[in-house]
Amino acid sequence: MVKIGVLLSGCGVYDGSEIHEAVITLLALDRAGAEILCMAPDMEQLDVVNHLTGQQMKEKRNVLVESARIARGNIKNIRDVKFSDIDGLIIPGGYGAAKNLSNFALRGKDAEVHPDVIRLINDMVNAGKPVGAICIAPATLVKALNNLNPEVTIGNDPATAEIIESMGGRHHIASVEDIHVDFSNKLVTTPAYMLGPSISDVAKGIEKLVTKVLQLAVS
Amino acid sequence: MVKIGVLLSGCGVYDGSEIHEAVITLLALDRAGAEILCMAPDMEQLDVVNHLTGQQMKEKRNVLVESARIARGNIKNIRDVKFSDIDGLIIPGGYGAAKNLSNFALRGKDAEVHPDVIRLINDMVNAGKPVGAICIAPATLVKALNNLNPEVTIGNDPATAEIIESMGGRHHIASVEDIHVDFSNKLVTTPAYMLGPSISDVAKGIEKLVTKVLQLAVS
Repeated sequence: MVKIGVLLSGCGVYDGSEIHEAVITLLALDRAGAEILCMAPDMEQLDVVNHLTGQQMKEKRNVLVESARIARGNIKNIRDVKFSDIDGLIIPGGYGAAKNLSNFALRGKDAEVHPDVIRLINDMVNAGKPVGAICIAPATLVKALNNLNPEVTIGNDPATAEIIESMGGRHHIASVEDIHVDFSNKLVTTPAYMLGPSISDVAKGIEKLVTKVLQLAVS
Repeated sequence: MVKIGVLLSGCGVYDGSEIHEAVITLLALDRAGAEILCMAPDMEQLDVVNHLTGQQMKEKRNVLVESARIARGNIKNIRDVKFSDIDGLIIPGGYGAAKNLSNFALRGKDAEVHPDVIRLINDMVNAGKPVGAICIAPATLVKALNNLNPEVTIGNDPATAEIIESMGGRHHIASVEDIHVDFSNKLVTTPAYMLGPSISDVAKGIEKLVTKVLQLAVS
């Protein structure tokens, strides 16, 4: 059975993993018969956002603890996950992918990526194992792999595409139901809620991404 | 376009809405072309549970604010939703359906149901509009409708089934991929994670539930 890691970054689009993208990923993996290993870093969230008002809240939450909501408690600290434990890795989007897994949302091209995220992504690519990234997560992926000229899509936003190019990536325009595949690095990306607009739209691209990651994991 | 309400109760299986059940419901509704109106009560959660450890946390969270994470901010206070605004209603499970929408998890057959939940459910049924309930949510549904002998399933748990019967409901055993339909009250229920075990298993029953609620909403 193929085992795929799902790297979460909290629970909620504005400060963590985008919940729809994460759940659609888990559902598509389970339907395909893949084993799933959810993981997240054990760290404080950059911020906590009231999703009703969009305002920051004066409280602290932990990325691993909140990610456990999406994983129903079945989740590991990424520190304890090695590339040899999994056959592929998928990173759902949401601001958490650019606030917690890296600080791309704050620092753009000068972003720093969480050390365990850099380690796992690079180990996966060096081992020839596929990595999928959804929505804004490709920005963090590019920063983690900037010496490999990774090809990704985040949809068609010119400003974000320009920063991705300035970090050493190559950006390809794609629509919400599409994926872009970097065959030399085995990277698969899809715009999801960078474009939307609806949950059934983003599901089309994410389901293609999961299928392609699974194909690359066994090829 | 048919408009279906989705009544959320927080964000996370142990203290709010079960996230997979809620997202699978939203996805199935959107794929069927239904308009979606997410709602939740504006109230403090009964408790906040660390989903990594299962332990209670010493903090307070608001049901509407946390539900907004699943709804990406597009959510209403149930107080402001009338039965005439929607053609059907679906209540995902998770402990929030039995801790926040009612206190069934604490009080069993003597549970009290949130006043706006009682109002909306009874108005829907009296208007001949369908109500779907997933996982443990049927227990709250029965308590809200106990004078109507509602027929539901929560799977096959004898203790929960007995309490449902003692509240005036009639319990029918069902498997995870099945729904039970009470045609006289237009109620549709499915066991979901009361049985599980996996996300693709619960999706089978929830997708059938959504299809049936949509059929009943236009018939």
